[in-house]
Amino acid sequence: MNMVQLFEKKKQGKELTQAEIQYFVEGYTTGAIPDYQASSLLMAIRLLGMTDEETFYLTKAMIESGDVIDLTSIEGFKIDKHSTGGVGDKVTLIVTPIIASLGIPVAKFSGKGLGITGGTIDKLESIRGFKTELSSQEFIDNVNKHKIAVAGQTGNLVPADKKLYALRDVTGTVDSIPLIAASIMSKKIASGADGIVLDVKCGSGAFMKTEEEAKKLAEAMTAIGEKLGRKVVAHISDMDNPLGKMIGNKLEVVEAYALLKGRLEETHADLLEECIIISSLMYQIAAGVDKTTAVAAVKKVLEDGLAAAKFEEFIVAQGGDLADIVQNDTAHKVAVKAASEGVVASINALMIGEASVSLGAGRLTKESSLDYDAGIQLVAKKGDRVSADETIAYLYSNSEINDETITKVQQAYSMA
Amino acid sequence: MNMVQLFEKKKQGKELTQAEIQYFVEGYTTGAIPDYQASSLLMAIRLLGMTDEETFYLTKAMIESGDVIDLTSIEGFKIDKHSTGGVGDKVTLIVTPIIASLGIPVAKFSGKGLGITGGTIDKLESIRGFKTELSSQEFIDNVNKHKIAVAGQTGNLVPADKKLYALRDVTGTVDSIPLIAASIMSKKIASGADGIVLDVKCGSGAFMKTEEEAKKLAEAMTAIGEKLGRKVVAHISDMDNPLGKMIGNKLEVVEAYALLKGRLEETHADLLEECIIISSLMYQIAAGVDKTTAVAAVKKVLEDGLAAAKFEEFIVAQGGDLADIVQNDTAHKVAVKAASEGVVASINALMIGEASVSLGAGRLTKESSLDYDAGIQLVAKKGDRVSADETIAYLYSNSEINDETITKVQQAYSMA
Repeated sequence: MNMVQLFEKKKQGKELTQAEIQYFVEGYTTGAIPDYQASSLLMAIRLLGMTDEETFYLTKAMIESGDVIDLTSIEGFKIDKHSTGGVGDKVTLIVTPIIASLGIPVAKFSGKGLGITGGTIDKLESIRGFKTELSSQEFIDNVNKHKIAVAGQTGNLVPADKKLYALRDVTGTVDSIPLIAASIMSKKIASGADGIVLDVKCGSGAFMKTEEEAKKLAEAMTAIGEKLGRKVVAHISDMDNPLGKMIGNKLEVVEAYALLKGRLEETHADLLEECIIISSLMYQIAAGVDKTTAVAAVKKVLEDGLAAAKFEEFIVAQGGDLADIVQNDTAHKVAVKAASEGVVASINALMIGEASVSLGAGRLTKESSLDYDAGIQLVAKKGDRVSADETIAYLYSNSEINDETITKVQQAYSMA
Repeated sequence: MNMVQLFEKKKQGKELTQAEIQYFVEGYTTGAIPDYQASSLLMAIRLLGMTDEETFYLTKAMIESGDVIDLTSIEGFKIDKHSTGGVGDKVTLIVTPIIASLGIPVAKFSGKGLGITGGTIDKLESIRGFKTELSSQEFIDNVNKHKIAVAGQTGNLVPADKKLYALRDVTGTVDSIPLIAASIMSKKIASGADGIVLDVKCGSGAFMKTEEEAKKLAEAMTAIGEKLGRKVVAHISDMDNPLGKMIGNKLEVVEAYALLKGRLEETHADLLEECIIISSLMYQIAAGVDKTTAVAAVKKVLEDGLAAAKFEEFIVAQGGDLADIVQNDTAHKVAVKAASEGVVASINALMIGEASVSLGAGRLTKESSLDYDAGIQLVAKKGDRVSADETIAYLYSNSEINDETITKVQQAYSMA
């Protein structure tokens, strides 16, 4: 077998076999297949697509390229969630304690953020003392004891994805549904979950710009999950507008905690609604109950304060200081005024995301350092009426805030 | 400008601009753009194609990547020919002296062979004493004096093509009409010709398997030529069957010389016919005469012996020993017998080409050495009636001839 034969088959529209896909993934991971052959095949996949079978074999080979986490020593059905990434998306921080408070074990591995997409690990690390590096034993003990642990990805999980993703990033092959699906699903499955709820974002602030693309991605991922014997449900949600009121690491933790504590004036209905949908789906899969039962159960633990108490238990269990979950003053703070009066028709999530990166809340490259307190507070949300010169948002940063960023946030608001 | 932008445009089906294509070719040639980005773009071009404008800009950028030969000190219209390569294709050896004997200057640069496709330079180097490395001055002097010189490609001609071709070869992107057209035309135009006759082969022994593909390639190449102000004509010829009777370096020189000397029993009518077509087209373009006049002129110099005399003059002028143009005995010789009686319906050119490479007549890699005397003599050609066990071909080699090669030649013959 050699790569030239794989190119010929793919170009002729033939399906690659499991052995051929495995040969590619193994060879590329070990370095036997050079970057220039891998990128050529990736572009062929980007342009010609992959069948469900091919995508499944790709995912399987990627999982097998490294370690697979063994969660069998955790009792019960292990449920995980994954968001394709959005601006202001702090859903994980809220739904994991909800689910844990319902008695379902949550053993979650999360990543760091890159670009406009924040990472749960960064958000948690903004809390003084919070430890995201846990040994396998600590992790499992925490889940068994508290029903919840969230840790950074450790070990040699899906090394094929790390290499392939770095190459895709510079060869125009990121926006391929089978490649995205295999990348996400290989990591989720290698992380040991029995069931996964996929939160597929679509809109200006998301990777999938249209609902059609988001649906295709959702279908590709659920197909892989089914073939690998996992329960997988996908939910498609709007990411034209940022989620909630806060964008930025510490700011999002503060907002999540406020929501769990029932201080809804500090957040927005869109975030609460999204969290109820996602946590209900997780509970449905994990507990095998119907939608009505699941929604009622989720609402109850929110109202009871059980979810908030579980959040506090979880933060403390991983060394975090609850007293630190407050919005710190930053060296610089700017109020952004409405350019004109009217009703907010939409807030461009991509522009808000880019502005938050400029403020120091996100990374431009993997090496960038973060300003945990930096970010944006959206005072006015979609549907709100504002008068000219009214404050629509606050920008926070420990670095100088430039005019370009202020203008970008102002222009992100479209008035009707 | 960066490669990621080029990928996005190409994926969206947009036309790349001249500046973008130039950026790619320059950057790749200098090494600023890595192989893995180039191969990804090449695969996108292979799958999505290129417009005529894009192909033209690619060719232009490739020409500008290196030196361009200046033939202005040669008087008259400089005519060149190019064959896309076939088995037993010794047409260059015959048509160049025909054209030179008609008073048209032939300043030809040729390449070495690779795989089943022989190279004119290898064939000429099989003649004792023949020099294919000429200084620029020797080359120009020879053309001015004898109206003919054939030399190996020297200098830094189209370095972009050398790098791109090596990459295409291992990334599944050889079979792309715009990439083939740009590769051929950039080299021909950098070689300084005013007019070019393209001999596009199609069939089992050629790169283009169907007439439709051959036509597309011919159209792409003539379009480039026109945009660059060159006179270009393409002729599509059959390469299902090998051309003539001989395959192998020295064997083909012997056959070419025999044809020019009018010893037609030592060759086959298909080769003569092909040579008359190609040389007439070359003469039509160079002298601006009509087809009938051109064909008559070509036939006349063949009958007169002027073409044969020009061939001898050319060989001697470049140091070759005419007395060496004879078929040498080889250490091994095998007669291949017909497997059954019947009329030869076709001789698979690809199989014959592969067998000739096994005998030592062709190179598997650029580093392989050649056995100049090795090759195949086709005793029976298409349309000939043979009885079972009659000799249909002879195999010549200075190495042991294995049974596989013998069987391959036997199986190349299809009987009706």
